[in-house]
Amino acid sequence: MLDITTQLTTNPKQKPAPDELGFGHYFTDHMFILDYTEGIGWHDGRIVPYQPISLDPSAMIFHYGQSVFEGLKAYVTVDNEVLLFRPDQNFKRLNNSNDRLCIPKIDEEYALEALKQLVSIDREWVPNAPGTSLYIRPFIIATEANLGVHPSNRYQFIIIMSPSGSYYKEGINPVKIMVEQQFVRAVRGGTGAAKTGGNYASALKGQEIASKEGYAQTLWLDGKENCYVEEVGSMNIFFKIDGKVITPALNGSILPGITRDSMIQVLKSKNIPVEERRISIEEVVEAHNNGTLEEVFGTGTAAVISPVGELKYLNDKLIINKGEIGEVSQMLYDTLTGIQNGSIEDTFGWTIRL
Amino acid sequence: MLDITTQLTTNPKQKPAPDELGFGHYFTDHMFILDYTEGIGWHDGRIVPYQPISLDPSAMIFHYGQSVFEGLKAYVTVDNEVLLFRPDQNFKRLNNSNDRLCIPKIDEEYALEALKQLVSIDREWVPNAPGTSLYIRPFIIATEANLGVHPSNRYQFIIIMSPSGSYYKEGINPVKIMVEQQFVRAVRGGTGAAKTGGNYASALKGQEIASKEGYAQTLWLDGKENCYVEEVGSMNIFFKIDGKVITPALNGSILPGITRDSMIQVLKSKNIPVEERRISIEEVVEAHNNGTLEEVFGTGTAAVISPVGELKYLNDKLIINKGEIGEVSQMLYDTLTGIQNGSIEDTFGWTIRL
Ligand SMILES: Cc1ncc(COP(=O)(O)O)c(C=O)c1O
Ligand SMILES: Cc1ncc(COP(=O)(O)O)c(C=O)c1O
Repeated sequence: MLDITTQLTTNPKQKPAPDELGFGHYFTDHMFILDYTEGIGWHDGRIVPYQPISLDPSAMIFHYGQSVFEGLKAYVTVDNEVLLFRPDQNFKRLNNSNDRLCIPKIDEEYALEALKQLVSIDREWVPNAPGTSLYIRPFIIATEANLGVHPSNRYQFIIIMSPSGSYYKEGINPVKIMVEQQFVRAVRGGTGAAKTGGNYASALKGQEIASKEGYAQTLWLDGKENCYVEEVGSMNIFFKIDGKVITPALNGSILPGITRDSMIQVLKSKNIPVEERRISIEEVVEAHNNGTLEEVFGTGTAAVISPVGELKYLNDKLIINKGEIGEVSQMLYDTLTGIQNGSIEDTFGWTIRL
Repeated sequence: MLDITTQLTTNPKQKPAPDELGFGHYFTDHMFILDYTEGIGWHDGRIVPYQPISLDPSAMIFHYGQSVFEGLKAYVTVDNEVLLFRPDQNFKRLNNSNDRLCIPKIDEEYALEALKQLVSIDREWVPNAPGTSLYIRPFIIATEANLGVHPSNRYQFIIIMSPSGSYYKEGINPVKIMVEQQFVRAVRGGTGAAKTGGNYASALKGQEIASKEGYAQTLWLDGKENCYVEEVGSMNIFFKIDGKVITPALNGSILPGITRDSMIQVLKSKNIPVEERRISIEEVVEAHNNGTLEEVFGTGTAAVISPVGELKYLNDKLIINKGEIGEVSQMLYDTLTGIQNGSIEDTFGWTIRL
């Protein structure tokens, strides 16, 4: 196992008030950095004071988008311990993304060890008000100073952390989502299953259109036939139709969400039928029209569950479950957040206590 | 028109020897920077010594890939003047890319003025050995320090310049190109027509596979039906079949190359029939099999023309024009490079002298 050196800040920042947190605005006192140099491999893992990154203007990240990232959270439990939720899965997915983007793989165990040390050092930054958490952002950027188009020969793997506020300040609020018709997020053979910057950049335009029409997020359809449901901006999507829960299968163009996987496991453990398969937007509309579309919800690290209250498709506005959170959505939310805050026993072995 | 301030370097770098140039390794003494701040617009245009960019680790460019770029060249003419080739087209395309990536547009005339001033200041860096040129890289990156997924509220527009060597050191060398089967570069509704980092990151994997098999570049097929020819890694593609020159139409998923457009205009001016339309890989194979596939060539700023000597598709290896440069390819190459080095009169009005 590689070493990790630590240089503590001499100038700790003031922590923001719990109700000012929001998402992704504030960062803790320290960050982790690991360098990659071709011929040497990953080296010089270090925890250092949070600080700017200085790169040559020709650094590849500024030109050719070779980057991957992850997003996970640390929670304070009811017993005032800190736990991480399935961090091993995030580093595994990071390596899958690395493979697609021609970035050298990291040692997953080492990354987890580095993360644990980093969270321990910034322990006081993990907020403990209900619903708050410490959002953790591991990412890798190509840093070679060269304008040739080829995989970079240098990278930095960095972890930064941001205390983040409660997603649902006034109870769980169903969101309105719009089916995107013109733009496509990803297609089979592309990078949709990887967590890479380009996917998010390409999604902004659809997002902008949805926002203008008053919708919170875009529901993406597949890029080939433009009729199968893929996922939402930063969530996977589930439909409860006639008692069965259906979510698009991992087809190579959607992100394999860790919350998605957790939800499927919880559903199975409760004997609620769940199917991973192709589902067309027409099937959803039809289910709505014949009264069998019982619940729709998105899943992701940020909100855990986001019930969908309205789905706009062409000129139709489907109102789902009277715009209220459904029974299964509520159960899944309670189970997952319960495991995350330690109030429900973690029979799945998902959590890692520091 | 906005101002441009200039701060000259006190520490000029040594210029590399002409035969060491290569591509994208060396950078001139100065760079241009323009900032964007929401509510203010683009501001503080300045020419400064070439220097690192320092950004917060949460700067959006490191996470969500919101970036666009351009590539063009300055040439020393036979009369020892410096000219730019169609720079207005590059800034126009940059703005089209900006639109797709939700980046605020730049003032194209201002950008051109800034570029001219920058090239004038670094005039001595424009190499003048035959085939060499000054490669110019304008690019825009999202710099807001925030992990929310939304268009950035801050950007930097930067121009850096790199003296670059002759693409063809020992005469024009036809390249071997492989048709990619598994991976997809872009799909209609995606970002293929924009020059944004993510497109290049997603193409690396196909490129890697091609390289391993001894091919210089990937020929991409469309993402929907996986049978229509799109373009090569960093070139548009042309086929001469039975006396007619055919190139894929601008369908929204390929980059509208400026060299491509120039070639079409030159062909028309010489009364050589040229068609922009959909062309399937099967049509190309069939033309090869019945002996009517006369020439294949890529076009782009880097090489101007890259004749294709071999095209691999599935298990077939099509040898084109005995692996030699064709007559039309040679004529196009001579015409364009002649206009660029001032030895042929620019009847198209493409060049701008400093
Ligand atoms: C595109 C996309 N889909 C789905 C998800 C949900 O993934 P996870 O549950 O691992 O957070 C995310 C968020 O990370 C995402 O960005
Ligand atoms: C993907 C792609 N296609 C085509 C081209 C050719 O464009 P241009 O002729 O403007 O250089 C380039 C190079 O810039 C490119 O990157």
